[in-house]
Amino acid sequence: MGRAIEFIELSEALRRLVDEVSIDIGGEVVDVQDAVGRYVFRDYTSNTDLPPFNRSAVDGVAARFSDVAGASEGSPVLLKLVGSIDVDSSSAISVGRSEAVLVSTGALIPSGADVVIPIEYCLLSGNLVYIYKTYPKYANISLRGEDLKVGEVIVRRGTKLRPWHIAALASSGYSEVEVFRKLRVAVINTGDEILRGVVPNTTYYVVASYVREVGGEVVFSKVVPDSVSEIAEALRKALEVSDVVVVTGGTSVGFRDVAPDAVLKLESSREVFRGVRIRPGRTASAYVVKGKPVLLISGLPVAAYISLDLFLTQILRKAYGTTLETRLTITGTLARKLPNELGFRSFYRVIACRDKDRGEVIIIPLRLTGSGIISTLIKANAILEIPEDLEGYEEGSKVEVSLINQLEDCSSVPLSDAEPYPKPMVKP
Amino acid sequence: MGRAIEFIELSEALRRLVDEVSIDIGGEVVDVQDAVGRYVFRDYTSNTDLPPFNRSAVDGVAARFSDVAGASEGSPVLLKLVGSIDVDSSSAISVGRSEAVLVSTGALIPSGADVVIPIEYCLLSGNLVYIYKTYPKYANISLRGEDLKVGEVIVRRGTKLRPWHIAALASSGYSEVEVFRKLRVAVINTGDEILRGVVPNTTYYVVASYVREVGGEVVFSKVVPDSVSEIAEALRKALEVSDVVVVTGGTSVGFRDVAPDAVLKLESSREVFRGVRIRPGRTASAYVVKGKPVLLISGLPVAAYISLDLFLTQILRKAYGTTLETRLTITGTLARKLPNELGFRSFYRVIACRDKDRGEVIIIPLRLTGSGIISTLIKANAILEIPEDLEGYEEGSKVEVSLINQLEDCSSVPLSDAEPYPKPMVKP
Repeated sequence: MGRAIEFIELSEALRRLVDEVSIDIGGEVVDVQDAVGRYVFRDYTSNTDLPPFNRSAVDGVAARFSDVAGASEGSPVLLKLVGSIDVDSSSAISVGRSEAVLVSTGALIPSGADVVIPIEYCLLSGNLVYIYKTYPKYANISLRGEDLKVGEVIVRRGTKLRPWHIAALASSGYSEVEVFRKLRVAVINTGDEILRGVVPNTTYYVVASYVREVGGEVVFSKVVPDSVSEIAEALRKALEVSDVVVVTGGTSVGFRDVAPDAVLKLESSREVFRGVRIRPGRTASAYVVKGKPVLLISGLPVAAYISLDLFLTQILRKAYGTTLETRLTITGTLARKLPNELGFRSFYRVIACRDKDRGEVIIIPLRLTGSGIISTLIKANAILEIPEDLEGYEEGSKVEVSLINQLEDCSSVPLSDAEPYPKPMVKP
Repeated sequence: MGRAIEFIELSEALRRLVDEVSIDIGGEVVDVQDAVGRYVFRDYTSNTDLPPFNRSAVDGVAARFSDVAGASEGSPVLLKLVGSIDVDSSSAISVGRSEAVLVSTGALIPSGADVVIPIEYCLLSGNLVYIYKTYPKYANISLRGEDLKVGEVIVRRGTKLRPWHIAALASSGYSEVEVFRKLRVAVINTGDEILRGVVPNTTYYVVASYVREVGGEVVFSKVVPDSVSEIAEALRKALEVSDVVVVTGGTSVGFRDVAPDAVLKLESSREVFRGVRIRPGRTASAYVVKGKPVLLISGLPVAAYISLDLFLTQILRKAYGTTLETRLTITGTLARKLPNELGFRSFYRVIACRDKDRGEVIIIPLRLTGSGIISTLIKANAILEIPEDLEGYEEGSKVEVSLINQLEDCSSVPLSDAEPYPKPMVKP
């Protein structure tokens, strides 16, 4: 039998990860083109004014506001055309009183002009132009620096770069940017049954693909038997090449408790927490070994997923010094009563769907049989948390869920998923 | 001056893309580990029952329901322990009347047993065990196939693979999966001003990083002058190596209209639509050349982004034969009146933020100066569409926006962004 585990609350576990774990994964320089989806390593500010000069926002006629004020359909203003400026010309034309210049979108505004009248409100006639509409001063002109000024922040450290950040960085002359190096994760799966091929190593795939999805890379992976010395040996190797080690199984699985023993056997290892009051996944534990975080999580795939999403995500947040993307939440009506064990935080897999007839979102809990049950994650599109101080939610309660996939239409949810437990229940 | 453009409504443009554009990008086989984030090419069904046998969901004691029914704290049931089964043992023990077997989580349920009592409700005493709680029949047993049955669908063609799909595929024995090949996109940026370095090629970075973000790859890129023959020549080369060609600029930019002319010059080219009633981006056009889609979009970065998000996304949907992830929407209160030109669909960049004091979401339009203004996309976290039949929205209206980034807290929105236009407005 494993040693007694001191369970702590989830909030305390997350707080300890923030306070007691430090991680420094450093930056690397990549071509700005390759930086989309990466987390930027430092603040970047604009090197230039954007636009670099006053330019026209439309195809039209640049003129003096004082000349065209009052122009209308019924009483157009007549101006003399003194030239035209295209988007690529660096003309030195200027606009005097009662003069106008044809400008294309993006073209430099000639000196003297302070308004652009769109071409559809102008009638050209030889070297004259009739203006049929008035606009406010500076209308249709993008002023120098109005988009970005020299020194203005484009992106802050920790931002996940999206296409417009890349465009702004490139416009500001950055051809390379420094982004956080990808988090290097080592994965150790414990279990004689996996080694012998009795059960497939499902949890490895959960961890490896989760790590990739959050922008990390798996740099080490090994399946080891339920042996303290062999797990310790794998940990030593893993710590040499990785930023974080994730160990699955070996904690209160069956009648063994080998993984925590293996971690504590290592030099300069320190417990952050051991056991968390969450369901599934209460055996989750965290250690620091040689300054690097080591997470022990369940060997069962769903519990493993939920633990990664809580604890590995927290480590990533810490690494990038920023708030990672938080998942979107949606509120809906619970289709069925859900129990909770007081003092534990439960994570239920649910389907959140829009019921067009009732005009509301319905939250349908999937039948819950054990944390090994991967099919509930395939079918679920959201996770419902029940906090420690509640005994559950009644049917019809308004609950908030966090989406892990697209919101569905209720008419497309198979009835079998929406039905109450179709067979003898396992967890009461 | 460009030729007169026949504008159509957005819904009609999207319908034509669906009806008139066909695209077949085929599949490729990848290791299941590398498949996360890719779109699966065919339906996959389970090859095995999961779990492959009836197994225990907890550490406990397997027994006959008829023996333990009625057990309680006050009147425990006494059973004889006839063995133990670990998660990796393939034991042939069976449970007779008044007998019990110790089982660990994941272990095979011995024949004869039809319930497992968690270890915390059992007291072991030599080869006897006291049971202090009763459970329903089959409690704490995961039945063979209850997770996935042979033949059950794991993922459908077109699904974007998430970690749990990878786990289910691997559990079901798939070490490789067939995913859609990445969409190959060619990018042609037109404009003498870009070639001469007068303005940076911002829009290229918008397109290239957008393509990467949606899981495609840029296989060809070229900046060409505003010349019909040079654009046509670049298109010919681009079409040889790509699935889709995106041409930026060259459509009603200034006094030229060279891109559509270049496309129509090519053999077997056909117009899908030319001009769409959207703002920004109304010059967006689509063609089919040699059976492949060619999109012409604005050379201005924001308009380009919005056009990609509408039209390239529609092409991707068609390619993957599925609904792509749709963006989440949120409803909030509009902080400022917004105008619309009847007959056009406008796309405004806005900040959606949660106002904790007022307990609602506020939608703050960013000042709008032109579709070249990249900084509004850096600051915006959502896009507000105003449909064709509305003249705009009044301040205080309830509006739905689609999120392009995380929802913010209103207290973190800089006042300058929330202020009404701080300088003379450009678009009335």
